[in-house]
Amino acid sequence: MSLDEERRARAYLLRVAEPPAAALVAFVSERGPIAAAAAVRSGNCPQRVIDETVARRDQERAEADLEAGNGMGARLIIPEDDEWPAWPLLCLEVAQQRGIQSGTAPLALWARGDARLDEAADGAVAIVGARAASVYGEQVAGEFAYGLAERDLTIVSGAAYGIDGAAHRGALAAKGVTVALLGCSLEAGYPAGHVGLLNAIAERGGLVLSEYPPGTPPARHRFLVRNRLIAALSEGTVVVEAGRRSGARNTATTAGALGKIVMAVPGPIGSATSAGCHELIRNSAATLVASVDDVVEIVGKLGTDPPERLQTRRPTDGLDGDALRIHEALERRQGKSPEQIAAESGVSLPRVRAVLPVLEMEGLAERDETGWHQPRKLRATKESA
Amino acid sequence: MSLDEERRARAYLLRVAEPPAAALVAFVSERGPIAAAAAVRSGNCPQRVIDETVARRDQERAEADLEAGNGMGARLIIPEDDEWPAWPLLCLEVAQQRGIQSGTAPLALWARGDARLDEAADGAVAIVGARAASVYGEQVAGEFAYGLAERDLTIVSGAAYGIDGAAHRGALAAKGVTVALLGCSLEAGYPAGHVGLLNAIAERGGLVLSEYPPGTPPARHRFLVRNRLIAALSEGTVVVEAGRRSGARNTATTAGALGKIVMAVPGPIGSATSAGCHELIRNSAATLVASVDDVVEIVGKLGTDPPERLQTRRPTDGLDGDALRIHEALERRQGKSPEQIAAESGVSLPRVRAVLPVLEMEGLAERDETGWHQPRKLRATKESA
Repeated sequence: MSLDEERRARAYLLRVAEPPAAALVAFVSERGPIAAAAAVRSGNCPQRVIDETVARRDQERAEADLEAGNGMGARLIIPEDDEWPAWPLLCLEVAQQRGIQSGTAPLALWARGDARLDEAADGAVAIVGARAASVYGEQVAGEFAYGLAERDLTIVSGAAYGIDGAAHRGALAAKGVTVALLGCSLEAGYPAGHVGLLNAIAERGGLVLSEYPPGTPPARHRFLVRNRLIAALSEGTVVVEAGRRSGARNTATTAGALGKIVMAVPGPIGSATSAGCHELIRNSAATLVASVDDVVEIVGKLGTDPPERLQTRRPTDGLDGDALRIHEALERRQGKSPEQIAAESGVSLPRVRAVLPVLEMEGLAERDETGWHQPRKLRATKESA
Repeated sequence: MSLDEERRARAYLLRVAEPPAAALVAFVSERGPIAAAAAVRSGNCPQRVIDETVARRDQERAEADLEAGNGMGARLIIPEDDEWPAWPLLCLEVAQQRGIQSGTAPLALWARGDARLDEAADGAVAIVGARAASVYGEQVAGEFAYGLAERDLTIVSGAAYGIDGAAHRGALAAKGVTVALLGCSLEAGYPAGHVGLLNAIAERGGLVLSEYPPGTPPARHRFLVRNRLIAALSEGTVVVEAGRRSGARNTATTAGALGKIVMAVPGPIGSATSAGCHELIRNSAATLVASVDDVVEIVGKLGTDPPERLQTRRPTDGLDGDALRIHEALERRQGKSPEQIAAESGVSLPRVRAVLPVLEMEGLAERDETGWHQPRKLRATKESA
């Protein structure tokens, strides 16, 4: 079970199922990618997984996709990689267990750019908003992105015209890290006017990301599906301008459903592009932010004191069921192998393998020559970073 | 004890104490104005009342003040008058009993204009904000006042330059009722540039009001003291523009302390005159309003269905201790005299006399030839109108 095999398996799975494929994702989480891919190919899997994969399961393009990616300087980041942002994305699994529509983790992510994804997602804020933004909105997006990037926060957005583009450009102007999530494949060149911007993001320390295999055109439903990743990869989402019914409001709603912080910028009351922001604020679905400092205060800057609320949390608060069972199977003195932990916790081996590094990142597990064990001294965890 | 005597007594008391004179107001509430005025003159009253009145108690100008008022078409409205807005102002007494600084009822109010004060205050919204307002702020204030006046709501404000003036003018433009509360006497001609506006308010169906006897110049502390009356006479206060520390924020804070609805209008985040509004909204001290409809929805238009919250209130909810005791002393079948009610409730006779009309207005008491009694059928009350 080499990383290469797992990568090929996940490239195949990304190709044959249209995200979000909730049943498939759960199936892969249970069986691991290689066994899951084999089962999908043969049709020897639960009906719901068959439903999600039957239309494309004969498309054996994993090698070709990986080569195509290579050819344009892209890579496929998989959960088995060190740089996989397991902790930020855990909110999706929690949401899925709670039956929330938008809560399906990605099977893998196509990426352009040299930044490590886990590092880029460590202290990230999403800035989203209307494509048909006002001058005011674009200025605010640019200024917020610039100011937050200066404070070493990553700016996550969707590469659309208007607010998204202004946010990416603001981060680049501050020589900060910015991450673009696409609703099409990396080479699709969409939106056309932002091809240069996407190149700049990839070349200047940021990342361009997509769930979609090469050759996938943009589509409205893909932008909505993509929005959950913008929300999940960020600690909070700032809506700069949004109409009453807009994609940006969808991202805000998703972020709220995922337990992330939602913020909105007010504007002149006559402006239609601020109407969605005002509604979010009035309905208490978003907190009003009027400055970069407001955002930093609300998100809580990494490296500064965490808010009191977090300091008093128990380290294992926020762990989902599997993670908690795995954590409880660990002992302080005696190390255990993943196989032992799987047997004792009743959690599948691939899932144990996926969760242990997350627990390690959070300081809830350590490994040495004897195997995995609980750390000698627990430390407080970050909430969702 | 004619109304004339009571009016002279209150004119005297307004002259000799600088509002808010909490001890004096309580003393008058207990003794009635005539006895209280006599006690103040002779110094035969509690020390706290002496402290509030000793500096000016020799100023016997009641007759002269009433004549001066007459000469300029003004009248002194006293709590014993039918048009006294007893119910809106009751929030001040409740606040005073709870020890809130800004909760002191006025002893009387000097008034110019033909409107009945009780009718003007029935369905009123305050619109307040910065004197150094932006073009945006003045436009919003004017539009809100116009739209609310069109819906037969009274616009209450403070006659200052900027937002206040725009609000009064907007109401006048809609041929609506607008009420100006001054921080100086009626004839003081302040602010100088608004003398024409104040005349128009008085002449075109509105009211110009002041606690201050003729000859009182404007002063910063008087504007702050006056703010409680703006808040009390309105069902809700809309802050259109306000700096971080401003008189408008003071009015908003006072309105909140008095249990009134506080609303704030957002604006561009770069605008210093919106910073106070944004703070109020972010701190949940105010609800964001972006349109006239928002205000109407929040305040609840008289004549339309009250919000559910109000429908389920018990009729006597919100009554203060005295009012509740008086209400409980009433019977359904048998009428009682105020003297009987005072004896049974243990509440002083002048207070019983003052509260009974309030209960009557609220449909919680009725009178016929047998005296005061509880109505046969209770109806739901408005919250604080």
